[in-house]
Amino acid sequence: MGYRIVLASKSPRRKELLEKIGLEFEIWPSKVEEVMTKTSPEEVCVELCRQKALDVASQIKTYSEEHPDLTTPQDILVIGSDTIVAIPKVDRSEESSDGASHTQYDLLGKPKDTSDAKRMLNMLSDNMHSVFTGVSFVFISKEGRVGEYSFFEKTDVYFYPVDDDDIDQYIESGEPMDKAGAYGIQGEFLKFVKKIDGDFYNVVGLPVSRMWYELSNLGVKI
Amino acid sequence: MGYRIVLASKSPRRKELLEKIGLEFEIWPSKVEEVMTKTSPEEVCVELCRQKALDVASQIKTYSEEHPDLTTPQDILVIGSDTIVAIPKVDRSEESSDGASHTQYDLLGKPKDTSDAKRMLNMLSDNMHSVFTGVSFVFISKEGRVGEYSFFEKTDVYFYPVDDDDIDQYIESGEPMDKAGAYGIQGEFLKFVKKIDGDFYNVVGLPVSRMWYELSNLGVKI
Repeated sequence: MGYRIVLASKSPRRKELLEKIGLEFEIWPSKVEEVMTKTSPEEVCVELCRQKALDVASQIKTYSEEHPDLTTPQDILVIGSDTIVAIPKVDRSEESSDGASHTQYDLLGKPKDTSDAKRMLNMLSDNMHSVFTGVSFVFISKEGRVGEYSFFEKTDVYFYPVDDDDIDQYIESGEPMDKAGAYGIQGEFLKFVKKIDGDFYNVVGLPVSRMWYELSNLGVKI
Repeated sequence: MGYRIVLASKSPRRKELLEKIGLEFEIWPSKVEEVMTKTSPEEVCVELCRQKALDVASQIKTYSEEHPDLTTPQDILVIGSDTIVAIPKVDRSEESSDGASHTQYDLLGKPKDTSDAKRMLNMLSDNMHSVFTGVSFVFISKEGRVGEYSFFEKTDVYFYPVDDDDIDQYIESGEPMDKAGAYGIQGEFLKFVKKIDGDFYNVVGLPVSRMWYELSNLGVKI
């Protein structure tokens, strides 16, 4: 018998993507309060998706222990995910202690209100930004052993210039408000996305092909 | 009054993309027999989309002349489009007369049958290919003057390795048969698409953001 798969997210876009590749899964959103101790997008997205997946794994374990009569022992895979939009800061590359040059970013989450959405979309217009999605797999074996595996994918996105009227109109549609960086690449705003470099579905919110590849490499049968 | 927009294609994916960006348009598929006189994907995709758009523009003009009572004089924009999948040939770069190096490609259209689909998917597995979509605008003014404007977009697509079982299963689903290169980037096969470099919707079949940008630059109000 394969894994019971649990998606630790209530995002309709992530649900749709997992359905597209033919996975059977259930949804168990995390309720954890996200705690950011890191500053780079590479680390933040992995930190947050780990918190979500570990929270749900812990909820599942507790539930199984409290209701042994209602649960069949089965291997479980919990998938957590977190997407961040990051705009490289101009001329702020830093030389780190390992001698490598690291890009510094402004991080954009979901907009607080419409004026915050407007600020974000103005930053993205006629510019390049990077979308980071972290993915955590938490495995719970039939016997209750827990293992985990995390990675992130980065996709660069280039926007055409977007004028104020188009930004206002897009904000009025309500679409930006639940999305990191205040836009969705699958909706009406796609007409301003010049090109991307990386995985498209990573920008939507889940790098499904990388996930599929990693699961296959890990020997996970789903 | 804005342009009456006519899409010279019966592709459901192109229709869906134009709807997504909020365009109002009608569909009038071309019936022209495609004639390829070129060999490079850049030239072939533009040649074929021009033939389609010019054919439909000519049908519309004839119809208007024959049924003056049924047609209101209006500026018309006909949009033709053609998508080709091209695999760069290894070590076959040629030095052309202008001194520039030009990549040589194997061109893939729609598969003839399931074994042709299998051949194509095997070529794409664990490999990079380029998707070229040509777009032609044919403008017919109220007074009957005809003008045209064409361009193409190129997107590089990288596949993870795909094994024979996965290819067979995908072909059985029937999805490859009406698609250039025998795959759709929006269906189940997305799990094998590692990354792209360029416009995603260009791979789906219509570079809508480039189209939007070009129309805006041409001063076309739609």
